[in-house]
Order: sequence, then C-alpha cells, then structure tokens
Amino acid sequence: MVKHITKSGRNLYSGKITLRSYKYRLGGKIIEKEIVEHQNSVGIIAIDAEEKIILVKQFRVAARSNLLEIPAGKIEHGENPHVAALREMNEEIGYTGKLTPIFQCYLAPGYDTEKMHFFLATDIKLSKKRLPQDEDEDIKISKMKLSTALDKCFTGQIMDCKTIAAIMTILKFKNVKSKSHIKKSLMKSL
Amino acid sequence: MVKHITKSGRNLYSGKITLRSYKYRLGGKIIEKEIVEHQNSVGIIAIDAEEKIILVKQFRVAARSNLLEIPAGKIEHGENPHVAALREMNEEIGYTGKLTPIFQCYLAPGYDTEKMHFFLATDIKLSKKRLPQDEDEDIKISKMKLSTALDKCFTGQIMDCKTIAAIMTILKFKNVKSKSHIKKSLMKSL
Repeated sequence: MVKHITKSGRNLYSGKITLRSYKYRLGGKIIEKEIVEHQNSVGIIAIDAEEKIILVKQFRVAARSNLLEIPAGKIEHGENPHVAALREMNEEIGYTGKLTPIFQCYLAPGYDTEKMHFFLATDIKLSKKRLPQDEDEDIKISKMKLSTALDKCFTGQIMDCKTIAAIMTILKFKNVKSKSHIKKSLMKSL
Repeated sequence: MVKHITKSGRNLYSGKITLRSYKYRLGGKIIEKEIVEHQNSVGIIAIDAEEKIILVKQFRVAARSNLLEIPAGKIEHGENPHVAALREMNEEIGYTGKLTPIFQCYLAPGYDTEKMHFFLATDIKLSKKRLPQDEDEDIKISKMKLSTALDKCFTGQIMDCKTIAAIMTILKFKNVKSKSHIKKSLMKSL
C-alpha cells in the first residue's frame, strides 16, 4: 500500500486557501487529486472547575449558520502546537490552563492537508492580558455541563466534527448520562 | 449573531473541488471568505456480530500516508443519505446492514461546506452483489475490537477526525477498557 507521489504540488489556486494537484501511482495507474493545502491547527477541550466545557459560538458562512465548537485555530508561523493552543485559548475564550495533548487527526483527509492537535485544558484561569480576536471572528463564549454538550451532539445543536470527537473522548472517561432519545435507540441497536 | 450573506459565491476555481468567495456582514464590516464547496457525505460505523468495528485502510495523498478510517463517501446526485450509506458500505467493505442515524456534522466548517451524516450499521451481512470501488481507491478492510480501535486513537494509528468521533461515540455507550498511557494521563488530569 506504499504509494509514490510522482509529482507533488502543481499549483491550481493561491489565496487564503491554496489548492494543488498531486499525482501518485496506485497499482498500475497514475491518479491525480486536487488537494486543499491548509496549515495545521489546534483544538482545545477546556474544562472549568465546575466541570463545564467552554465552547464558542460563531457564524460560519460555510454552514450558513452559527455553530458551537471547541476553541480552535491555525498554528501560526514559528509556533509549536502547545504555544498555538495557549494563544487560541486566550484569544477565543480568555483563559489559560494546563494543557495535556490527547490526539492528532486530519479533519478531511480525502482532500485536505489540515491536521489538528487536540489538547485537554484543565486548572484553567482567566488570562491576565486578553489577546484580541481575529478580524473575521465574532465569538460568543458558551459554558455548559458535559451532559448538556453530549445531548447537543445528538440533537443537532452541536454540528462540528472536531467538537463531537472532543466531547465524546472526554465523556468516554467520565460517567455522564445522556437524556437523548437517540442514545436510547443507539443502545438498543448495539 | 445572525449574519447576512451579501454576495454568495463568486467562483474562484472549478475542478473536482470548487472554491468560492463569500461576502457577509459582521458588525459594521464586510468579511470575505474563501470557501471549499464540497458535496455532503456519509460515514458508517459498522459493527459485526463479534462486536468488531470494520475500518478501511487507504492511501491519502493529503496525509502522505495510509490512514485507517470508517467507510465514508460523498452522497451522489439523486441519493438520500441512507441510500448513499448503503452504497458506500457495499463498495468499500462489501456489507449491508441495518442503519441507525446518529448525528450530522461539518468536517471543517471554518472553510468547507461538507456535512457528513453518520450512521451506525448493525445486523450486518455480506452483500450479495459487490459494487466496484471508485477508480482512485485501493481499500483494505481492517476489522478490530473496539478496545483496539480506542487505543489506536491515542497512539496515532488512527488519525482521522470522523473516525475518532465515531469510535468515541460508540464507546461512550459501551464499557470498553483502554490500555493506553494517554488515557491514564487523561484520567489524572480530569
């Protein structure tokens, strides 16, 4: 299954998003794929002293709606993932804390290079100096119980994959109950 | 937080991937964003009679490596998500089964319109007539215990966000143990 990238990166479009064409050998064939080249990023699962998770709500034009998500953002030039996570926590929710790396994953590996580093943030406290939000951001903070967040994944009030992955991972390790009907139908199916 | 999309979809690139520029009003400003327009899709969490999850392994040029993922794919023209999920199950793993919708979510809502519909597949059995894989696919099937899949999320052997969301969701509802060190450090942090 090891494949050879025979030609890497004919440029198709360069703007805020970069689009490139990659060729690689698959069996006897040469496959050409259009790939979105995107910086790697960080996502932060911030849990406060009351065991609430801190989410952000913002307008996403791609979804044409406001979405509830974990704080997240690109790793900027010169940053490592840990530093980027601390900066994004400060910018988006105004907190700092102790970060534990959990896992890394691609968001849409079929056509997108973005890999996100997930951190759990505990012992969180308000940042002494709050950094400004990015120009295209208008973020509202939303703290909620983990059980509420769990239910929102099943009712369509949380519709972001990284956020669902994050919430389910934390809940895997905690005995939080869900009231959702979908959970019951899931339990019956399993 | 309700925003108005003032101009929808100046075309920037059209190929297999479509890139468009959207303008919308944010407070007093007009924001312009480049957005990847991608068809919606389905992802299938297929659990067999031995309680193993059926994953697929395939080369992903965007990740420059072979990734383990749940079976997934685009919803084709004229299909509803349920029909698309049955077709993808057949094409990618050669099974059919009973589908239960779990949730829907955007994979990268900051810049990508793709929304994936997740289904749990139970009572699965081999398809009578296997559909061929897509031309650019070379998929190997990988069945594993849920506990193994869980550990692979923490050791970097599973690095796909939809797959982690899927595995954690199923495991939330089952008492599956993890041997991973990261789990222990997570438990200590929480």
